[in-house]
Amino acid sequence: MDNSKTDFDPSNWEDFRTLGHRAVDDAVARLSSIREGAVWKAPTDATSAAFSGPMPDDGLPLDQVYSDAVSALFPASMGNQNLRFWGWYMGAGTAGGALADFFAAVDGSNLGGGNTGAAKVEWQVIDWLTDMVGFPKGSGGILTSSGSQANLNCLVTARNKMASVDVRKVGIGGLPKPMRFYASQETHYCVAKALEVMGHGTDALRLVPVNERLAMDPGALPAMIAEDRAAGFEPVCVIGTAGATSTGAIDDLVALSKVARDEGLWFHVDGCVGAVVKLSRQHSGLVGGLEAADSVALDLHKWLQVPFGVGAAVVRRKTDQSDTFAAHGDFLEMKPRGLIVGDFFGGYGIDLSRGLSALKVWMTFKEQGRDKIGRMIDHTIELARGAAARAEAEPQMERMAPCPINVACFRFWGESLSDAALDAINNEIMLQLQEDGSAVMSDTQIGGKVAIRMAISNHRTVKSDVDAVLDLFIARGQKLLAEGFADGVAAE
Amino acid sequence: MDNSKTDFDPSNWEDFRTLGHRAVDDAVARLSSIREGAVWKAPTDATSAAFSGPMPDDGLPLDQVYSDAVSALFPASMGNQNLRFWGWYMGAGTAGGALADFFAAVDGSNLGGGNTGAAKVEWQVIDWLTDMVGFPKGSGGILTSSGSQANLNCLVTARNKMASVDVRKVGIGGLPKPMRFYASQETHYCVAKALEVMGHGTDALRLVPVNERLAMDPGALPAMIAEDRAAGFEPVCVIGTAGATSTGAIDDLVALSKVARDEGLWFHVDGCVGAVVKLSRQHSGLVGGLEAADSVALDLHKWLQVPFGVGAAVVRRKTDQSDTFAAHGDFLEMKPRGLIVGDFFGGYGIDLSRGLSALKVWMTFKEQGRDKIGRMIDHTIELARGAAARAEAEPQMERMAPCPINVACFRFWGESLSDAALDAINNEIMLQLQEDGSAVMSDTQIGGKVAIRMAISNHRTVKSDVDAVLDLFIARGQKLLAEGFADGVAAE
Repeated sequence: MDNSKTDFDPSNWEDFRTLGHRAVDDAVARLSSIREGAVWKAPTDATSAAFSGPMPDDGLPLDQVYSDAVSALFPASMGNQNLRFWGWYMGAGTAGGALADFFAAVDGSNLGGGNTGAAKVEWQVIDWLTDMVGFPKGSGGILTSSGSQANLNCLVTARNKMASVDVRKVGIGGLPKPMRFYASQETHYCVAKALEVMGHGTDALRLVPVNERLAMDPGALPAMIAEDRAAGFEPVCVIGTAGATSTGAIDDLVALSKVARDEGLWFHVDGCVGAVVKLSRQHSGLVGGLEAADSVALDLHKWLQVPFGVGAAVVRRKTDQSDTFAAHGDFLEMKPRGLIVGDFFGGYGIDLSRGLSALKVWMTFKEQGRDKIGRMIDHTIELARGAAARAEAEPQMERMAPCPINVACFRFWGESLSDAALDAINNEIMLQLQEDGSAVMSDTQIGGKVAIRMAISNHRTVKSDVDAVLDLFIARGQKLLAEGFADGVAAE
Repeated sequence: MDNSKTDFDPSNWEDFRTLGHRAVDDAVARLSSIREGAVWKAPTDATSAAFSGPMPDDGLPLDQVYSDAVSALFPASMGNQNLRFWGWYMGAGTAGGALADFFAAVDGSNLGGGNTGAAKVEWQVIDWLTDMVGFPKGSGGILTSSGSQANLNCLVTARNKMASVDVRKVGIGGLPKPMRFYASQETHYCVAKALEVMGHGTDALRLVPVNERLAMDPGALPAMIAEDRAAGFEPVCVIGTAGATSTGAIDDLVALSKVARDEGLWFHVDGCVGAVVKLSRQHSGLVGGLEAADSVALDLHKWLQVPFGVGAAVVRRKTDQSDTFAAHGDFLEMKPRGLIVGDFFGGYGIDLSRGLSALKVWMTFKEQGRDKIGRMIDHTIELARGAAARAEAEPQMERMAPCPINVACFRFWGESLSDAALDAINNEIMLQLQEDGSAVMSDTQIGGKVAIRMAISNHRTVKSDVDAVLDLFIARGQKLLAEGFADGVAAE
């Protein structure tokens, strides 16, 4: 080995070119045939073996490293790129997005900030997103690694701007009264986690009851705020949910914004699931009122199909975010000239060194265009609503929740089955379909009962996939019943 | 346009293959010639124009999107891949890392968790990192988007585990006494920012004086802790710095760990700059004591050269992190079988949906191997120490700080020049070298004076680069003096 070489470049760039071409060919082979085969398969022993053992002392040729990784990874991928993956809530990625990630790393710029082309990409993406939300001039934002981070960024901004003291200095211990935040019972747990990280604790989060649509009951909110004020708390923030993860339920954002305005509270919207419905000509009314928010958390690796992990925290007043996060280090002083001029991303969020995640967002919008993105959203809403309608019509299925957007919730049903038996059989059907690679759906609890979720945030899914999997779902339930599965549960 | 197509796949996979090959060729052309040309150039009007305007309604062919982006981005990159870039503190990236980012997006798995090959990659990387730090069995960790996030993750864990109440529920308002954290005056501002986000405020951060090495004076610490206890505060955490950003100064981690143990405090180390020195056979002693920490923040996109953005929060006791971050949502219940089994990454940090950033770390370790990474670290330390030594020897330079690792701090110097004139001329030299593309260095303040930083966290740099830029640096200072630059400052 040549011990004098300390740089990490390939010894031979032609070898890298050959490998790179092979990686592209592998990507084409994989993604162009993603319709075929099992949605998900458990990792084999070979995959486990490939990713075990200590850090190697000696390096290996990159093409061998690549081969080892690809042969162990691809057969045991999550499967979310497959047309029949509708578990939890995630995007299916795109080939263009993968290329953007490569190209971002080849550009190599640090998006902490600085006067670079890369910085202009992120600012343009932020402009597009604030425009999508409907924010006025003077709004701003920052890309984050996830929707959870976007919510955290927005809630810290809300907290700091609503505080009557300089919380950046004295902390929340210096507040005259403990703060209270309000979100629906269906809010994503990342909101509670953000408040834990922020030192408020989950006690600071008041969960407002939901109505029959599983959206926050705006009528319940003023009374809770008044009650908290009377008890010596400081209500500061109403958190609307534009697309609950379980069911897609969208709070009445117009009503919530009015309560927030009347009560003098910050209005934040967790739009990670549904805010992008703004891009649909047909359905944008579902998230009407989003434009009245003070801050909105977005996830771009979900319905927008951008590869993981990228979200965005957008704010009505750009300075609210910089007032919250801008900081100064001796080693990082802005200059009037040279590389380190301009609007510094690190001053709008928690991260300082950052990659060019903006590029995959930019390329997705440029390649697909707003109209087609809107049509994809309409298409997936139609598929999910179709599934929910079928669940209502099928004698052996039950629709478990309204389907305002792209999440259908249902269960296999039989007249003689107890709720315990229904919970067990639905869980079993779901796991069997995962295990045999037919489809990935996930579950939730609705009214204390197990519901199976078909979250169609997948640009590749077509109606025949939904139909075929619902056929399978019913057939599997019938088979389990015939085998006496439910009797077993009853006997337990 | 075919309005019936709603998936985001290429209409023609052969076109994508051709484009992918071209992108690889562009990468080879760029990275194999990165030695040539200006380190950095300001974006042109054409670059600004390419990244302005509203979100397009109609999509464009991917190859056109790619061409538009690449032609606008590459000429205006930050330059951190270039051999003569030593500004702030960042890595130079690698071709293999870029390929890993592509390949991670092609795999597409969501690293929230689940039983996938991708999950095994991240767990192996965490094992390697805890092993590097010197943690025992039972330790754990999670990859983050940055070192700032890694510090935040560790400090939230420290706070929650040190609390005498259930802060996840009641918040820090329920603590009997306000907490206090201790770090050196040279600590990175992300530590203060983390405490702001966490609701403690910067008042909770006590900055401990530094010694002549610019490392924390461990002797000053017990008295500050005692003073705070007497004043009714609850000291909870000593934060060691393993590599200050300004100068590379490393706290005496053995001494700090002893104080923390004696006083019953958590011992966290911000190792974002220097913890990887553990991989050097020659210099690992510089970070002795790291293995005694309760938590360590790491940055992998710095000295390890992994493309942005990836850091890691590693903890001595894995359960400390899950006690802090694990949460439950109805829509995300772990199962004994199927896809969603196993150790769930989302339970160890803030993010839920996450990408496979682990792959570029894994491929870097596999391709380079521990020994060569150690040699690269030794090589860059040697280069920086050489620069510092030359600054000491040159009549027209002054060494401004010790150079324990890879950050040389110096200034251009002239006998007759006031400190104000020296500040101005050094700033001017630095900016001119940035502007003419010769080199990127940055500045800091040491003892109230401007120091120029050569932070050689760049695997490509060789000695002739350092020598040539120091020649240029001196020559530029002399030229400015000859032009009367310093007289101008004096007259102001």
